[in-house]
Amino acid sequence: MPVPTIEWVDGRIRLIDQTLLPNEFKQIYCDDVESVWEAIKSLRVRGAPAIGIAGALGAVLGIWRSAATSYVDFAAELKKITDYLATSRPTAVNLFWALDRIKKTAEKHKALGTTQLKQVLLDEAQQIIEEDREMCRAIGQHGLELLHSGDTILTHCNAGGLATSDYGTALAVMFTAHEAGKNIHVYADETRPLLQGARLTTWELMQAGIDVTLICDNMAAQVMKEGKIQCVIVGADRIAANGDTANKIGTYNVAILAKEHGIPFYVAAPTSTLDFSLENGDLIPIEQRGAAEITEGFGTRTAPEGVKVYSPAFDVTPARLITAIITDGGIVRPPYEMSLKTLASEPSTGVD
Amino acid sequence: MPVPTIEWVDGRIRLIDQTLLPNEFKQIYCDDVESVWEAIKSLRVRGAPAIGIAGALGAVLGIWRSAATSYVDFAAELKKITDYLATSRPTAVNLFWALDRIKKTAEKHKALGTTQLKQVLLDEAQQIIEEDREMCRAIGQHGLELLHSGDTILTHCNAGGLATSDYGTALAVMFTAHEAGKNIHVYADETRPLLQGARLTTWELMQAGIDVTLICDNMAAQVMKEGKIQCVIVGADRIAANGDTANKIGTYNVAILAKEHGIPFYVAAPTSTLDFSLENGDLIPIEQRGAAEITEGFGTRTAPEGVKVYSPAFDVTPARLITAIITDGGIVRPPYEMSLKTLASEPSTGVD
Repeated sequence: MPVPTIEWVDGRIRLIDQTLLPNEFKQIYCDDVESVWEAIKSLRVRGAPAIGIAGALGAVLGIWRSAATSYVDFAAELKKITDYLATSRPTAVNLFWALDRIKKTAEKHKALGTTQLKQVLLDEAQQIIEEDREMCRAIGQHGLELLHSGDTILTHCNAGGLATSDYGTALAVMFTAHEAGKNIHVYADETRPLLQGARLTTWELMQAGIDVTLICDNMAAQVMKEGKIQCVIVGADRIAANGDTANKIGTYNVAILAKEHGIPFYVAAPTSTLDFSLENGDLIPIEQRGAAEITEGFGTRTAPEGVKVYSPAFDVTPARLITAIITDGGIVRPPYEMSLKTLASEPSTGVD
Repeated sequence: MPVPTIEWVDGRIRLIDQTLLPNEFKQIYCDDVESVWEAIKSLRVRGAPAIGIAGALGAVLGIWRSAATSYVDFAAELKKITDYLATSRPTAVNLFWALDRIKKTAEKHKALGTTQLKQVLLDEAQQIIEEDREMCRAIGQHGLELLHSGDTILTHCNAGGLATSDYGTALAVMFTAHEAGKNIHVYADETRPLLQGARLTTWELMQAGIDVTLICDNMAAQVMKEGKIQCVIVGADRIAANGDTANKIGTYNVAILAKEHGIPFYVAAPTSTLDFSLENGDLIPIEQRGAAEITEGFGTRTAPEGVKVYSPAFDVTPARLITAIITDGGIVRPPYEMSLKTLASEPSTGVD
């Protein structure tokens, strides 16, 4: 991204308000932890890695003006802040991971004075951003071998630069292939209800000069049937120990369609998305969103008043539908129980 | 429908403008054949049977004020009108069927004076409406055995009263089951890009007192995985001799998802939707719609200016994914090459 998705600027957090894209490009400032919470909740900042960064910077912002002089008071305050931020997106494992990392860093440096400790936590948050940047590049490099000149890729939602601090995850593979001179084309699912594909993915790809075509989510099967798609690449919000993957609602749909048409289905995600505490995807909690995102999402009411709505924010794609997972540590393939464990035990290439 | 979807009123056609629902219930008048063409093209009237009726009434309206005194002139004028109306929706077999029927009726009664002939054609159009009413009721009755109390049905787009002159096709089965005292629940796909499911299907079902829940198209797989759906029922725009079925874009998606979850997938359609001239669905032309329906569908621009868009209006569900076809002549099952032929050769129960 030419402009950082989210960054620390003089004691405040500046982020691109993604709810306004593509009609308006606007950066907003968060001055307190409540506005960070709201920005995550309202999807002004979204995408697993970017939410992690927002959480880390948000925790620093929350503690930045703390008057605590003892570590005990500081730690208690920090815990309150991180517990609060953790409620903004209950499915985002990167959020919990980043908040935990900030808390552990504080614990590790408890001997320091609180003023110095604040700076250490900010450095740690900046380190998360730097690692995220390296992670994006590593995913892009590893995924490169899967794309060939002339390929058309289908993607769902936005796993791009706006979802991270840099190149994205799923889109990192496309950006890297494009930079490597491979002639690729992308079909982007619009991704109802909040249209991250229509609003963000097409915008990012067009900015990068990659040929992109927008479709409605329900057109994916037809496009596949016409032989237009060589592979699917999507991001991930959380991956269980067996490879089951939680991602934006509709991902599971696409995975089934890809299987039916014999098309490889790839997940691109950082190692930090792995959650070995979950044996399988059935244990991943599914966030439910409000009805208005569906019934009045386009500035007009598009369903009768009082209609019942069911709106899961995520679904879980079973590992058996996933051809490979492109991580910053390399490409892993089934059986995932083994390959993910091996990946996690190998020396990291940027992500702790 | 308490108010007819489309009807002849004193030399004009009155129809419900379905583009305004559910926010506004408004009937509009068509005074000339151009406004009928526009109403079909813009989906003010939509749904295979209703388009057929609009075509028949439109042809009558077009010829109604003709000054022709000879049958030759009358027939030439009628052909021009029907050729023009046929261009409004190139995939709608019911439209061609109805226009053809009006032309054949004229030919059959060519010995009459042109004034009398106009009345005969209007009577024929009214007869199509009456047959459509009987067709809806027959589909509902035949489909009744497939639904059990406690069942939840997923449907896509709107194959309801608004798509016909009466009870609809897919929704006829639900209305009939509800009236028979069966306790059913319905999940309605919103059906992008024009949201017929969100705007029309939920509205019709709520008016009938049937419990309905709205979802985005990409949530269907998740809802199925949660065990919430006992069967899928959709309408059809055109059925080839082998059972391949063209219907609203996204239907093929749903059929694949139903297969993956072991859920029966039913098509409800009148015999008039059968097109034996097409050996299979590959021969069905797919109408492409304009980009704006996707990029600025409901008052807000939701994609970057200049983005490429691909928007097929229909897809074709292969016969192998269809558990049964509920017609006004009864339920037919695979192999469809045989069962559909048998159906067509049996005495009609209302539809010619």
